[in-house]
Amino acid sequence: MKKTILLFSALLAFGGLSAQDKSSLVNPIIGTNGMGHTFPGACVPFGLVQLSPDTDTIPHNIDGKYQPRVYEYCAGYQHKDSSIVGFSHTHFSGTGHSDLGDILIMPTTGALKLNPGTATNPDGGYRSRFSHETEISRPGYYEVMLADYGVKAQLTTTKRVGVHKYTFPKEAKNQRIVLDMIHGIYNYDGKVLWTNIRVENDTLVTGYRITNGWARTNYTYFAMSFSKPVIHYGCEEKAKVDYRGGYGKFNMKENFPDIGGRKIVAYFDFDPAASEELEVKVALSGVSAAGALKNLQAEASGYSFDQLAARANETWNKELSVIEANGSEDQLAMLYTSLYHTMINPCVYTDVDGQYRGLDHNIHQADGFTNYTVFSVWDTYRALHPLFNIINRQVNTDIARSMLKHCEQSVHKALPVWSHMANENWCMIGYHSVSVLADAVAKGLPLDKDEVLKAMVSSSTIPYLDGTGEYMQKGYVALDHNGSAASLTLEYAYDDWTIYHTALLAGNREVAETYKKRATNYANVFDTGIGYARPRYADGRWKENFNLLSTHGEGFIEGNALNYSFYVPQDVDNMIRLMGGDKSFVSKLDSLFTMHLPAEFFADTEDVTEEGLLGGYVHGNEPSHHIPFLYVWTSQPWKTQYWQREIMNKMYRNNIDGLCGNDDCGQMSAWYILSAMGFYPVCPGTDQYVLGAPFLPYMKVTLENGKTFEVRADKVSDRNRYVKSVKLNGKPYTKGYITQQDIMDGGTLTFEMTSSPNKKRIFMGTDKPYSQSTN
Amino acid sequence: MKKTILLFSALLAFGGLSAQDKSSLVNPIIGTNGMGHTFPGACVPFGLVQLSPDTDTIPHNIDGKYQPRVYEYCAGYQHKDSSIVGFSHTHFSGTGHSDLGDILIMPTTGALKLNPGTATNPDGGYRSRFSHETEISRPGYYEVMLADYGVKAQLTTTKRVGVHKYTFPKEAKNQRIVLDMIHGIYNYDGKVLWTNIRVENDTLVTGYRITNGWARTNYTYFAMSFSKPVIHYGCEEKAKVDYRGGYGKFNMKENFPDIGGRKIVAYFDFDPAASEELEVKVALSGVSAAGALKNLQAEASGYSFDQLAARANETWNKELSVIEANGSEDQLAMLYTSLYHTMINPCVYTDVDGQYRGLDHNIHQADGFTNYTVFSVWDTYRALHPLFNIINRQVNTDIARSMLKHCEQSVHKALPVWSHMANENWCMIGYHSVSVLADAVAKGLPLDKDEVLKAMVSSSTIPYLDGTGEYMQKGYVALDHNGSAASLTLEYAYDDWTIYHTALLAGNREVAETYKKRATNYANVFDTGIGYARPRYADGRWKENFNLLSTHGEGFIEGNALNYSFYVPQDVDNMIRLMGGDKSFVSKLDSLFTMHLPAEFFADTEDVTEEGLLGGYVHGNEPSHHIPFLYVWTSQPWKTQYWQREIMNKMYRNNIDGLCGNDDCGQMSAWYILSAMGFYPVCPGTDQYVLGAPFLPYMKVTLENGKTFEVRADKVSDRNRYVKSVKLNGKPYTKGYITQQDIMDGGTLTFEMTSSPNKKRIFMGTDKPYSQSTN
Repeated sequence: MKKTILLFSALLAFGGLSAQDKSSLVNPIIGTNGMGHTFPGACVPFGLVQLSPDTDTIPHNIDGKYQPRVYEYCAGYQHKDSSIVGFSHTHFSGTGHSDLGDILIMPTTGALKLNPGTATNPDGGYRSRFSHETEISRPGYYEVMLADYGVKAQLTTTKRVGVHKYTFPKEAKNQRIVLDMIHGIYNYDGKVLWTNIRVENDTLVTGYRITNGWARTNYTYFAMSFSKPVIHYGCEEKAKVDYRGGYGKFNMKENFPDIGGRKIVAYFDFDPAASEELEVKVALSGVSAAGALKNLQAEASGYSFDQLAARANETWNKELSVIEANGSEDQLAMLYTSLYHTMINPCVYTDVDGQYRGLDHNIHQADGFTNYTVFSVWDTYRALHPLFNIINRQVNTDIARSMLKHCEQSVHKALPVWSHMANENWCMIGYHSVSVLADAVAKGLPLDKDEVLKAMVSSSTIPYLDGTGEYMQKGYVALDHNGSAASLTLEYAYDDWTIYHTALLAGNREVAETYKKRATNYANVFDTGIGYARPRYADGRWKENFNLLSTHGEGFIEGNALNYSFYVPQDVDNMIRLMGGDKSFVSKLDSLFTMHLPAEFFADTEDVTEEGLLGGYVHGNEPSHHIPFLYVWTSQPWKTQYWQREIMNKMYRNNIDGLCGNDDCGQMSAWYILSAMGFYPVCPGTDQYVLGAPFLPYMKVTLENGKTFEVRADKVSDRNRYVKSVKLNGKPYTKGYITQQDIMDGGTLTFEMTSSPNKKRIFMGTDKPYSQSTN
Repeated sequence: MKKTILLFSALLAFGGLSAQDKSSLVNPIIGTNGMGHTFPGACVPFGLVQLSPDTDTIPHNIDGKYQPRVYEYCAGYQHKDSSIVGFSHTHFSGTGHSDLGDILIMPTTGALKLNPGTATNPDGGYRSRFSHETEISRPGYYEVMLADYGVKAQLTTTKRVGVHKYTFPKEAKNQRIVLDMIHGIYNYDGKVLWTNIRVENDTLVTGYRITNGWARTNYTYFAMSFSKPVIHYGCEEKAKVDYRGGYGKFNMKENFPDIGGRKIVAYFDFDPAASEELEVKVALSGVSAAGALKNLQAEASGYSFDQLAARANETWNKELSVIEANGSEDQLAMLYTSLYHTMINPCVYTDVDGQYRGLDHNIHQADGFTNYTVFSVWDTYRALHPLFNIINRQVNTDIARSMLKHCEQSVHKALPVWSHMANENWCMIGYHSVSVLADAVAKGLPLDKDEVLKAMVSSSTIPYLDGTGEYMQKGYVALDHNGSAASLTLEYAYDDWTIYHTALLAGNREVAETYKKRATNYANVFDTGIGYARPRYADGRWKENFNLLSTHGEGFIEGNALNYSFYVPQDVDNMIRLMGGDKSFVSKLDSLFTMHLPAEFFADTEDVTEEGLLGGYVHGNEPSHHIPFLYVWTSQPWKTQYWQREIMNKMYRNNIDGLCGNDDCGQMSAWYILSAMGFYPVCPGTDQYVLGAPFLPYMKVTLENGKTFEVRADKVSDRNRYVKSVKLNGKPYTKGYITQQDIMDGGTLTFEMTSSPNKKRIFMGTDKPYSQSTN
């Protein structure tokens, strides 16, 4: 009874958004132009399939020359483009590197065209012009009118099946589906190693392709069904295959059901007299074509497009309803789109029967968990997984187990660095999966602590991995041996702290002792003389001609010394000491947010639009995401409150280029959601969320344990951005952080907001968030 | 008791070859030079692994130009060569097309060389010179001294594991194994689609490669263990891979355990101080690296090379002991080598746990059977499978079931034509698996007749398959549409007869009726005007400018009209009529065997050495294999006896070029064994073996039912080559054939031999072998 009343009164009190309406608040177009690298197409939460229009197919390499424009097309789509190549079934969400774009389908009419054409000459190929006015993009649904053919395209998905509905014009003399097995994101001349297509019968096609893209060896199997029979089909091979059985025995280009080759584009013709509509279901599997067929049958067979689209919408509404909120239209669009973006990657990589391709390329049976893939760990350990530990604990448990399996299947016995589709691509640095696991353990996910610790230790002791050997020996990675030496040392030290902390929880003193020490290695790359982090050479000397502002050549990666120097999340107190004490530290923070970064240095700041900068602070990339919250350890915590809101207003906007940098599989979005609630996990692995200020007057999280956690800040506004006082469940709350337990217990965190800072609200002793050296 | 006495007396009576000695009679070197295409390496009966030295690596294609010399290297070895590239694990036995040569290993010392070098400059690469004097080749064992390194190489195998023992010279400063993942037979620049190698630990390496060779997409997984630890390893990539995770993070060329790429050659170094010997075990699987590891563990782990070599020898002795025989040293060498050659292909293609890769590239579980592959059906339906129905019924049952599964997994629902390693390569013509199945059904193998019939019908009604549509419509394939039109029509008609016959046995009258009629289609390509088979055009006219002697451009394939005209095994009586009646037919047969074939026509006779011709009769290729036995239907059966012995003496010799044409996976050998027993299955699918004359004074087959079937011909010799009379189990026998039942019942077939033909012994009425038109 009580629960019902609470829900009802909440509805009344806060704008009456029913559970059914959340998905309508999402604007998937946010971030589809520029650096956001999000896609507008259809998917369901954590689904393997992201079915989305690709607007261009820039190869990343032509005749051995890198094509920088490939970077724009990490998600296959740029809003500025005016033609659609087709709809492919796999897309990263917001990544800083590209791949996928597997199994492209395009409906066409008229003359047979089996090449995609170009943006400048769309008529030269099967692609079509389109207008954004005909585009509808909402969670689980995408619609567009393909102008060149007059075909209305509607897309939806289940977890493992992309579902297409094409309405051809009445007057069309033919209806055709092009299946381009060459198309891909991060494409180049040799990306497709092999393709097979089997026309099993006149409404079912199976097949696979193996690619050598960013994923070194990616196996994408599919099973594709049509709502009406194929009346004619064929293919073109755009690369010579040296031997093909059956030369002279068959016409292998038309109506021959066993197609194989390096570069295959196939097409399927349907009877226009039968109906104007054609539905196509494409199930994927990383295991086998048989697995894809099972996925098709289990998830999509027997349901119409409309039924499946309705189900996708329901699923999103249910998942998005984990958060209730009040705010302006733009604020809610930003919040729910952020929430939406946190539930795309990672994604399931298990067939419905539990089989999956492991990192060892063997087929495994997932026992008691769902295997996940797409781990952009250097990004997502910061806020996405901590957010999951609040709102998606079951998913994060499965992710943690998938990471442990990855480690078990790794020949290095290494947890994921950046991995997708049974491949490790080693992108970016650190062994941050240890942080994901440490946070999961600290926050009570049901994992075997000893198994976790074993994987952590093995992942952090691989001597040949990116300077780890030298790091273990010397306590730092030397710049003469590794261009990212200082970043590596800082991040390894943090990672090591998470291992130390997990070892404590697992009761393993020996490991704890080792990693406690390793966790202090950050100090080895702090030059107290200049008060900033600075790389050393192997002989111990500091880097010469050191530039704090440059992102390149200074021993850091995807960040300059100015930002990276704040990267000691496990020991902020000592970092403050190393940077000259409270006053100097605050002044350095202030200067970071307010300085003018000369254009020459912005130019080489990666992955970031100009809006992604606030002074010298870089929000469009990850290493600095915790920085605004570091004021909480200082004498001026209110500055966190100030800068948080600056960042949220400036860098998250409800429009096509509303993301100031790559969303990075939900990390940017998770930052927004947590920050909007008024807290942030500066040091994942602790159970603490450091308090800033909330962004919205009301937010409520429904926890998986059935409890709810509310954040109220009635008077919050751009003006009233400062926290006067805080109450937890009605009682005055004086700490600079809340704990996971506070959240899991349910309750209400109430912020009294004002227009001027409460300079008395500073945090000392146990009210101050965690720091290794003072705990 | 009786059995023991018989065995004992047999040993006493016939030269005392004990069961242990059979393998010593085998000379695997027979056929390793020239056209035989056999290999000298080690294997066990029907094993997946054929571990053998490759002496050259001629690519079949350089810059798009076909290299005719590739044909010599179907088995990777030519006896005339003087250097060995290394030892690879898969080889066809005697085929007329090449492929495989997977996973090459070569032991070396000295400077690191990671290319194979060339025959003319062996020092330019890792290959080594060798002398045949140091070669030992016997069933299940191969040995050679690699002269350039002073390394003694010894090879043996289990069914799924190649086992190497290398003895390095005492003074060698290093011991190295090269693992060349580029090497292959039927190689070309793009054959290897992808390679992965994982160094799991210092004594275990796993991996796989995917190739696009003759098998369109062949997956070869391996697990390789070393008897002592690797102390250093590395690899070279001979093709650029566009993205490789970890650039700059690791040295991926040395001691990096996760190797992947298009063209990889790896090496492994071992401590010479530890011992001079190194044993390497390489298990294969078509399923996965995990499957290969299971195979390794189940078949070879825990056993030394010497133990496994002894076991291989025992296995061969047991299998070869199915036949006891008396004869000269050369005759027995030829007989047992032939028997040996019948037990190499087909081979198992199932992991020890029953998993196998199916034709659909899905992984299947073999339920109640062992899956086999390498089906050179156009060759082997003639005599190999009929022989198996006597001596290897369990294997042939598994083969039949594998063929049925192939059909089920085929997108065409077609039985194998020429298939290997989960691929159909469509080589040569006909749907002769129906004959294999018909013969199996007729001879009582435990198969489901309805399932068999269904597969037969679907395989013979695929309209787009090699003229089948036209054949079904018109009763013949027209020369204007297919260059092999006449051969196709003849062979389809025979195949159809086998379906008719199976339908009768299955009690399916409707199918029987259809195929009874189709089985007479051969008559549509017989020009009674000239008394020979002759292709027709689509409008019914006969081919113009028709040449009986040419193998090319006359509507036949791998045979000329002169030979192919005798190809109506299902209706010899009517064929005799079509060719002008008994007198004319005998004269045409006589002329075939005695004529002079002008050099210009020999030159274009494929796959045959000059010794493979007897007049115009071509024994070195298959279409004529039954021809010598056709005299049995005529007034002059003794001529079969004459020509049989001519062929056996001339075309099977105990030396390196002792085979007059490709052994074709045992077909040439099976012909020899059956012919040596005095009979031959002219029309597989009947239960009859047509009687000629035996070659040896004594042969005994031990049947799987425990009975024995003996053939005695005490006085047989080149002079006494004619049959005076025959007794079966002591009673006078007047038929021109014996039946499968006669053999299965056990007993003794006794031939009284003379030096001149018994011209009264002719066969009329029911004594004459089967003919459709007179039955």
